[in-house]
Amino acid sequence: MKEIIEGFLKFRKNVFPTHEDLFKGLAHQQSPRTLFISCSDSRLVPELITQHEPGGLFVIRNAGNIVPSYGPEPGGVSASVEYAVTALQVADVVICGHSDCGAMKAIATCACMDGMPAVGSWLRYADSARIVNQARHHRSERDRIEAMVHENVIAQLANLQTHPSVRLALEEGRLTLHGWVYDIESGRMEAFDGSRRAFVSLAENPHVRATPEPLPKAM
Amino acid sequence: MKEIIEGFLKFRKNVFPTHEDLFKGLAHQQSPRTLFISCSDSRLVPELITQHEPGGLFVIRNAGNIVPSYGPEPGGVSASVEYAVTALQVADVVICGHSDCGAMKAIATCACMDGMPAVGSWLRYADSARIVNQARHHRSERDRIEAMVHENVIAQLANLQTHPSVRLALEEGRLTLHGWVYDIESGRMEAFDGSRRAFVSLAENPHVRATPEPLPKAM
Amino acid sequence: MKEIIEGFLKFRKNVFPTHEDLFKGLAHQQSPRTLFISCSDSRLVPELITQHEPGGLFVIRNAGNIVPSYGPEPGGVSASVEYAVTALQVADVVICGHSDCGAMKAIATCACMDGMPAVGSWLRYADSARIVNQARHHRSERDRIEAMVHENVIAQLANLQTHPSVRLALEEGRLTLHGWVYDIESGRMEAFDGSRRAFVSLAENPHVRATPEPLPKAM
Amino acid sequence: MKEIIEGFLKFRKNVFPTHEDLFKGLAHQQSPRTLFISCSDSRLVPELITQHEPGGLFVIRNAGNIVPSYGPEPGGVSASVEYAVTALQVADVVICGHSDCGAMKAIATCACMDGMPAVGSWLRYADSARIVNQARHHRSERDRIEAMVHENVIAQLANLQTHPSVRLALEEGRLTLHGWVYDIESGRMEAFDGSRRAFVSLAENPHVRATPEPLPKAM
Amino acid sequence: MKEIIEGFLKFRKNVFPTHEDLFKGLAHQQSPRTLFISCSDSRLVPELITQHEPGGLFVIRNAGNIVPSYGPEPGGVSASVEYAVTALQVADVVICGHSDCGAMKAIATCACMDGMPAVGSWLRYADSARIVNQARHHRSERDRIEAMVHENVIAQLANLQTHPSVRLALEEGRLTLHGWVYDIESGRMEAFDGSRRAFVSLAENPHVRATPEPLPKAM
Amino acid sequence: MKEIIEGFLKFRKNVFPTHEDLFKGLAHQQSPRTLFISCSDSRLVPELITQHEPGGLFVIRNAGNIVPSYGPEPGGVSASVEYAVTALQVADVVICGHSDCGAMKAIATCACMDGMPAVGSWLRYADSARIVNQARHHRSERDRIEAMVHENVIAQLANLQTHPSVRLALEEGRLTLHGWVYDIESGRMEAFDGSRRAFVSLAENPHVRATPEPLPKAM
Ligand SMILES: [Zn+2]
Ligand SMILES: [Zn+2]
Ligand SMILES: [Zn+2]
Ligand SMILES: [Zn+2]
Ligand SMILES: [Zn+2]
Ligand SMILES: [Zn+2]
Repeated sequence: MKEIIEGFLKFRKNVFPTHEDLFKGLAHQQSPRTLFISCSDSRLVPELITQHEPGGLFVIRNAGNIVPSYGPEPGGVSASVEYAVTALQVADVVICGHSDCGAMKAIATCACMDGMPAVGSWLRYADSARIVNQARHHRSERDRIEAMVHENVIAQLANLQTHPSVRLALEEGRLTLHGWVYDIESGRMEAFDGSRRAFVSLAENPHVRATPEPLPKAM
Repeated sequence: MKEIIEGFLKFRKNVFPTHEDLFKGLAHQQSPRTLFISCSDSRLVPELITQHEPGGLFVIRNAGNIVPSYGPEPGGVSASVEYAVTALQVADVVICGHSDCGAMKAIATCACMDGMPAVGSWLRYADSARIVNQARHHRSERDRIEAMVHENVIAQLANLQTHPSVRLALEEGRLTLHGWVYDIESGRMEAFDGSRRAFVSLAENPHVRATPEPLPKAM
Repeated sequence: MKEIIEGFLKFRKNVFPTHEDLFKGLAHQQSPRTLFISCSDSRLVPELITQHEPGGLFVIRNAGNIVPSYGPEPGGVSASVEYAVTALQVADVVICGHSDCGAMKAIATCACMDGMPAVGSWLRYADSARIVNQARHHRSERDRIEAMVHENVIAQLANLQTHPSVRLALEEGRLTLHGWVYDIESGRMEAFDGSRRAFVSLAENPHVRATPEPLPKAM
Repeated sequence: MKEIIEGFLKFRKNVFPTHEDLFKGLAHQQSPRTLFISCSDSRLVPELITQHEPGGLFVIRNAGNIVPSYGPEPGGVSASVEYAVTALQVADVVICGHSDCGAMKAIATCACMDGMPAVGSWLRYADSARIVNQARHHRSERDRIEAMVHENVIAQLANLQTHPSVRLALEEGRLTLHGWVYDIESGRMEAFDGSRRAFVSLAENPHVRATPEPLPKAM
Repeated sequence: MKEIIEGFLKFRKNVFPTHEDLFKGLAHQQSPRTLFISCSDSRLVPELITQHEPGGLFVIRNAGNIVPSYGPEPGGVSASVEYAVTALQVADVVICGHSDCGAMKAIATCACMDGMPAVGSWLRYADSARIVNQARHHRSERDRIEAMVHENVIAQLANLQTHPSVRLALEEGRLTLHGWVYDIESGRMEAFDGSRRAFVSLAENPHVRATPEPLPKAM
Repeated sequence: MKEIIEGFLKFRKNVFPTHEDLFKGLAHQQSPRTLFISCSDSRLVPELITQHEPGGLFVIRNAGNIVPSYGPEPGGVSASVEYAVTALQVADVVICGHSDCGAMKAIATCACMDGMPAVGSWLRYADSARIVNQARHHRSERDRIEAMVHENVIAQLANLQTHPSVRLALEEGRLTLHGWVYDIESGRMEAFDGSRRAFVSLAENPHVRATPEPLPKAM
């Protein structure tokens, strides 16, 4: 804990003064343009990899960057999505998985969850990715895990589209969804290209989206 | 979205290369010492205010930095807490609220939640703070909101202590709980001092804790 | 009740004998090719409008032809979908709404549900259609209701795609989804064309599908 | 799918024209007298075995013809029952099981449900029938399954009586409950005789009911 | 609190010594014959009104003597019923309501439950009694409340019969159900006579039961 | 059942007349000062061991004297606690466990709960005590069970403090919490001393409390 307190004191002394105007401007309002949903993993810092200052990203973080589908007992992710889309009117949602994800590893290797029942229960929201992952052949366990990370991002994008606030914003053409996978070792980012239905390099394809066009108008 | 992609490209080009060794070392493992639970609010960046590099903090972020008490249907916060405490064996948990929190403002001012039912439902996990906040006299709405932010941190600390993983770690003397409130405008941090049962300046009281001593041994 | 008993006696005497071989063949197995999900409404008889004999359609019927998204407490629709897709290996799923639907009318006109709390609760699974319906302008209440019927079919198609069994079957290319709306008065059927994202006449477009191609392969 | 489209086209061309007046009369209202609850099984077509035209039966179909008891999170069956009894004021409810039911077979033979978790979870609503079935001696597995089908109908009748709308209608003497079991091979129907507490042939006992008299008046 | 500590000291000094053998015999086992379910109300002491010593009654007490119907998330009442019927093999279950019950009064008078949301939620398990109570005419509010107390006992008897352990024990003829209403002022007890479907004086009808005969054997 | 009816008749004849005035005074109101939460176990009679007459204790009894933490689906214990604290304004809450508790024995010995699923599910609310109990060394199974009984009381005290009504009353200084363990064989009572964090003899320490001082004032 010493480290974290010292970190804060260093922030107060060295960093805060250089950002004082920024923070003053943010004191009574925020207007982030992006909702960034990623894993709790300590190695993936949303603001660092997008080089965003405070005020730029509304962030949801949980083990496995999971977005439960909408239901009668909405929890913290559903509430935070609704707040971001309805109250803050963000223009983009990024679901960002990452390499070597402990949660996805646990699913892909059928790790025994008896000692962590809450984790086991939570990971069931990735069941539709797990079942696809298990049905496929993979050359190695490493491949299986990496595939699981990607499958999970696709599954959570599907879940996200059951949320009323998201669906309305998509219908009104004011929201775009993005599915990313970050590689910790190389710093590379893959993005899901909804029109080609494949992951591609984000650096080389900066315009890909998970949902390429607004959803249909009924009638 | 342009900004976020450009941010990532800048990260790739300018930042990643200077951290290459750090990221290589983190490629296949993480060992954060602290679980940091804070609000999704864009203005509160945990790694910035604690001056931590990637790998340092396991982070949970949701609207209102809420920790539901443990129950039969554990959600994402419960799972992430369990993973941090049981699998990663973090030594400290910080619950960090902040000034001008939209979620706490909604509660303290009895904002109509009809247009955001998932938010309304989620904020019920702060009911034990809300009911205390409502029963007290406050000189102004601003005071009421600030008090709500503080009450909420105390209530979430109580909820946290119903989690089996937390209780075991407290019993074994390997976990300390912290309750903080960050002021966006001034950069000041208050910490809950469990022995005095009051919030104090963290800078002036770097050793305060929410749970000053290990919990009791039964029998 | 007299009518229904007499109906059965008539069936026994006149209809059963003419189908005896069919029923004998079905005594110990069923192998329907289609899962048909429609409203409980008495006016929409799936086997009649598809001219299918016993053994042809696996049928789910409930108020509003609703398919809750997949979650930790799966109910009857989730179970029946899973059984049809996993055990019976149906090749097609049809979600079929209909004109003058009491459930959709209740939603579109914001009918007071105090006297029918279970209905009110159930219809929340159509929230993502309702919110879109409410945000749009409609020339008349009748138009609003008809639009709601169509929106609901699209929303339930989204919900359906969060089910693990469905997602696996889509990935493996062995399942096609269909979204239909039946007009009671005219006997016309509209079908949702996923590629054009619009409803078209089924009679004139017998090949339209809600999901035109298999879902993406990750990686 | 070709078959089902062709079936619909045939319906449009040959069947609809002969029922045009019926459908016109039904365009803006339904007034079914009976709620018919049966299995999703493709071999049991409610309108066929009761020789009812469109407009005659309000139908709920799910795997196992199950009616969850009333609780704080009512699902699709509860909502549809409530709608039928409260809004449509049906005079009779029939719960109709059938021979060779896949769901009942799974319960009676303790089939492993690991591959179909949603089915496994749903069938727990038949636990009070399962536990009785398991405690009894049966001469063969076939007998055990057939007994399970019958036990299940009795259990669902008990569940049905916990629904407020049902209980009120029973108290007011405007609703009768029926429990039936249909034999696919022979076309025979058994009905539960509440006064004798046994299943009897419906053809020979057309007046039997599951609830022979209105429920008690308190005080 | 002084009173309660003094009460205990008095028990230790005066009462315990006179029951020492009884308590010694009970130290390592209990074998109560009856499960007694009553209200938390301070005025209704089960052991006093049945003149039973320690060891005689297994007791469940909650606000409103409510027994939720069996479902996928069984709570404390379901667990305690299961333990009593399955593990302890009690021979009788008594559900005992009482005059002037605060919970029933709240239901019968439609008291605003905003200040007690948990109570409001819990009382929904008496909905099937409430709906009957509301539909009937009563000469006075007092009559309405008294009728509600009686209706509630009948409704909870129906809920109780959805529990697997109860249903098995009834089938096996080793359990009898009783529905009582106790009048605090007069000390009179009414019991529900299942065969006459009415409440009668227990003193004058000591043999009445809520379930007069074992439930039916299927097939 | 004969015994219980005879018990009641004896009460009516011999006991009621000697308490007639007491009961008359209680006919239309109760004002208990204490909420007593204990196990359903037949050997622990709250009114006997505290020597309280009718009207003195508001009583919750369930298997294991468990108090679920507060959540979005409050059950019977939450409702009864809320009623006692908010409506009746009790001054003290006692959670009273006991020696040889079947529920605690089942947990401490990892008894197979397959035959009693509702009990197994309910006992998960003691998970935070179970996990501590399992991590510790105990000299004998008997010791392990006794420790479990004590751990459980501490865990339920933590759960109790997540209830809004309890937290408000603690904040306002009008409620005190007590954690007791009763020994059936010896009649001794231990009480949890919150300041020393240990169980001590209640007879020798009549003033101990689980929560020695009011909870903190925020800010
Ligand atoms: Zn991860
Ligand atoms: Zn905030
Ligand atoms: Zn309809
Ligand atoms: Zn079936
Ligand atoms: Zn009462
Ligand atoms: Zn016990």
